[in-house]
Amino acid sequence: MDASLIVDEVRLTPILISDPPLLNVQGVHQPYTPRLVVEVITRGGVSGLGETYGDGVYLDLARPLAEALPGRPVADVNALFALAEATDPGRGSRSGTGRGTGPGTGDEAGVDASGLRGVRTAEKLRLSVVSAFETACLDALGKTLGLPVHALLGGKVRDSVEFSAYLFYRWATHPAGGPVDDWGAALDPAGIVAQARRFDRAYGFRSFKLKGGVFAPDQEIAAIRALAEEFPGRPLRLDPNGAWSVETSLAVARELADVLEYLEDPASGTGAMAEIAAGTEIPLATNMCVTTFEEVPEAFAKGAVRIVLCDHHYWGGLGRTRELAALCRTYGVGLSMHSNTHLGISLAAMTQVAATLPELHHACDTHYPWQTEDVVTTRPVFREGRLTVSDAPGLGVELDREALAALHRRWREDDGRYRDRDDAAAMRAANPEWRPRSR
Amino acid sequence: MDASLIVDEVRLTPILISDPPLLNVQGVHQPYTPRLVVEVITRGGVSGLGETYGDGVYLDLARPLAEALPGRPVADVNALFALAEATDPGRGSRSGTGRGTGPGTGDEAGVDASGLRGVRTAEKLRLSVVSAFETACLDALGKTLGLPVHALLGGKVRDSVEFSAYLFYRWATHPAGGPVDDWGAALDPAGIVAQARRFDRAYGFRSFKLKGGVFAPDQEIAAIRALAEEFPGRPLRLDPNGAWSVETSLAVARELADVLEYLEDPASGTGAMAEIAAGTEIPLATNMCVTTFEEVPEAFAKGAVRIVLCDHHYWGGLGRTRELAALCRTYGVGLSMHSNTHLGISLAAMTQVAATLPELHHACDTHYPWQTEDVVTTRPVFREGRLTVSDAPGLGVELDREALAALHRRWREDDGRYRDRDDAAAMRAANPEWRPRSR
Repeated sequence: MDASLIVDEVRLTPILISDPPLLNVQGVHQPYTPRLVVEVITRGGVSGLGETYGDGVYLDLARPLAEALPGRPVADVNALFALAEATDPGRGSRSGTGRGTGPGTGDEAGVDASGLRGVRTAEKLRLSVVSAFETACLDALGKTLGLPVHALLGGKVRDSVEFSAYLFYRWATHPAGGPVDDWGAALDPAGIVAQARRFDRAYGFRSFKLKGGVFAPDQEIAAIRALAEEFPGRPLRLDPNGAWSVETSLAVARELADVLEYLEDPASGTGAMAEIAAGTEIPLATNMCVTTFEEVPEAFAKGAVRIVLCDHHYWGGLGRTRELAALCRTYGVGLSMHSNTHLGISLAAMTQVAATLPELHHACDTHYPWQTEDVVTTRPVFREGRLTVSDAPGLGVELDREALAALHRRWREDDGRYRDRDDAAAMRAANPEWRPRSR
Repeated sequence: MDASLIVDEVRLTPILISDPPLLNVQGVHQPYTPRLVVEVITRGGVSGLGETYGDGVYLDLARPLAEALPGRPVADVNALFALAEATDPGRGSRSGTGRGTGPGTGDEAGVDASGLRGVRTAEKLRLSVVSAFETACLDALGKTLGLPVHALLGGKVRDSVEFSAYLFYRWATHPAGGPVDDWGAALDPAGIVAQARRFDRAYGFRSFKLKGGVFAPDQEIAAIRALAEEFPGRPLRLDPNGAWSVETSLAVARELADVLEYLEDPASGTGAMAEIAAGTEIPLATNMCVTTFEEVPEAFAKGAVRIVLCDHHYWGGLGRTRELAALCRTYGVGLSMHSNTHLGISLAAMTQVAATLPELHHACDTHYPWQTEDVVTTRPVFREGRLTVSDAPGLGVELDREALAALHRRWREDDGRYRDRDDAAAMRAANPEWRPRSR
């Protein structure tokens, strides 16, 4: 094989990026959240980019994998899974299904109805790390060959990808200090509608998703109804991250049956989701009860979800995302896309893989408009709620090394406060009495 | 996009290749069987190769697809499915699930327990056609980029692929005349063991599969027991192509429980397979009750099969084969590989995709050793039952244009006798009283 397609070096750069005080069932986003930038550099001098979670537990897995990669063909992404397993320092000592191996990384961390911190299995952590390596390998491969990543995934089937506006209850500023933006607070229906209007004006998003599980269900129902009134006929979604009981979920579903495109993770666990699904016509979506291939059969058999929100980080990369799409197609389950706090590298990866999926009939989630910092030289621009699919080689983004260095400096100089994301701790710092509630 | 990666022309060459008088539940292989060679030629002058079924019904679908491809990026294989549907001349007029749209293309044609001729849906026909186009596109892409096809599929996870010996009851010669080989007849256990010995000597195959459904089950049981005695501990498989009743299947399973690696399609239909699966410890394999993604959910839910035999022709290409592997991995179902009469192009494609599948734990089927003619310049060589995975660009095979022209001439000069494969007609020509039997 051409030496230019052999991995020469892998660079890992943990960073802290500023994040607004967005509220969710687990607490509030910290002022800074950790991400990891993976650079896979070939012997031909081409650098491919990947991005994933940056908490310590991910770094611990990424470091040995980064050491094992040089000398291997950059195209060999299928082999990354076994390599990540073989180099996992916790292999054997960690349970494959145990709790508590990872941090509560915010609003997608598999929080259960009691509001316990995130549940992450060793396998899930590994897949999130592999995803960044796979993306970086594909970016390097595409750049070397002069092909966009979508062409390495069988080619795009659309020229632009639709995203939804991701609405959050939020404070105006972080109580502990930190970055400030001009969005102001949004703590009631009027605030949410104002936020949606700005998203609509600035980016033309057609779909709106509200992160719920923050206030009493009645207040969140009122916010959705206010959105429906302001934007009649536009797709609306509500996602309380599994905060509600089956009864509450069914009550909310009844109230919003006429306006919701889908209801996302009203309750935790496949059993509860199946009960709710049986009692409502509103499609249920999930990025919590189906986050790994292992969780698919039970959820599909029970009819617990009608839409799976894919996320290339969780699922182990862009190839695995395509496999999930095939599973959903086979079982007649819809597909949408999940997002957590991320930068332009992941947004480019999401867009490239989304472009290849005929099955993707719902606008993708993205936190990206909330992010004011980035490590790519050119921020992608949403127009009419869509991103144009790049046909440039690789992911179509370039690293801004100065920005990367600055964000890495922030990480290096952090006293340990923000190196692991913990929305509950951030919330308790503001309100020591706060406990996640189930409703 | 680089103009060298745009499709300039597609050439379709139907051919007739000689085939030995191999017996199966549907009858006997004709002296000549139709195949279609697809060449996708880029504006860079690179030619990619694909191979599929060559009966008229496939040609009818391939021709309009071939006309639609020029001008499109050769990497855009995801788009082939919609394009094949859009260009299908029977679109709308054919039932998506109807019977009788295709020929009885031999031993994999979904014959039911009554021995009716093959059932092929419009969708299945289309996928078989798409597979050859997809393979040809990937071959052209790989040759242009200097990458093996496996690298375009995420990279190989093994350096060689194991195949099994495919044993057939057979006559020494075709009653109607035609090509002659030196294998002689095999019509009893001694004949099958002699055939297996030759396969073992010549190619070193470790696994043996016997095509059954030809004689009474007792005779086929005796053949398997003779193989077990001759080759103790070697993996053995028996495949009567769904010829048996549930009762017969269970009786055979009881007799062979100690020696079979798996029992392939003892009876027809997911319901019957599930009944049998519930009554035996022998794993059931299939390439009949699960041949499309649509058939997967019911079969997996009922536990009808423990091993699916993938076939990149049926399933729509190498990418879809990888999706099937992901499905099987997700549902804890094993994976092996099916084969029908094929040449070196398809063998190369099978080997390339098999190399990328960590889930493939059973030796692949191949008819290839039975084929004395080919359209590739160099016949691949089985050593210790394995083929080395080519790292040459594309599929790693080159077209022998003289051989192709000669086999096409045979097709052109054929009076219509062999242009559609019909094993039952070939059998009735020898024995007008013959009817496929269920047992």
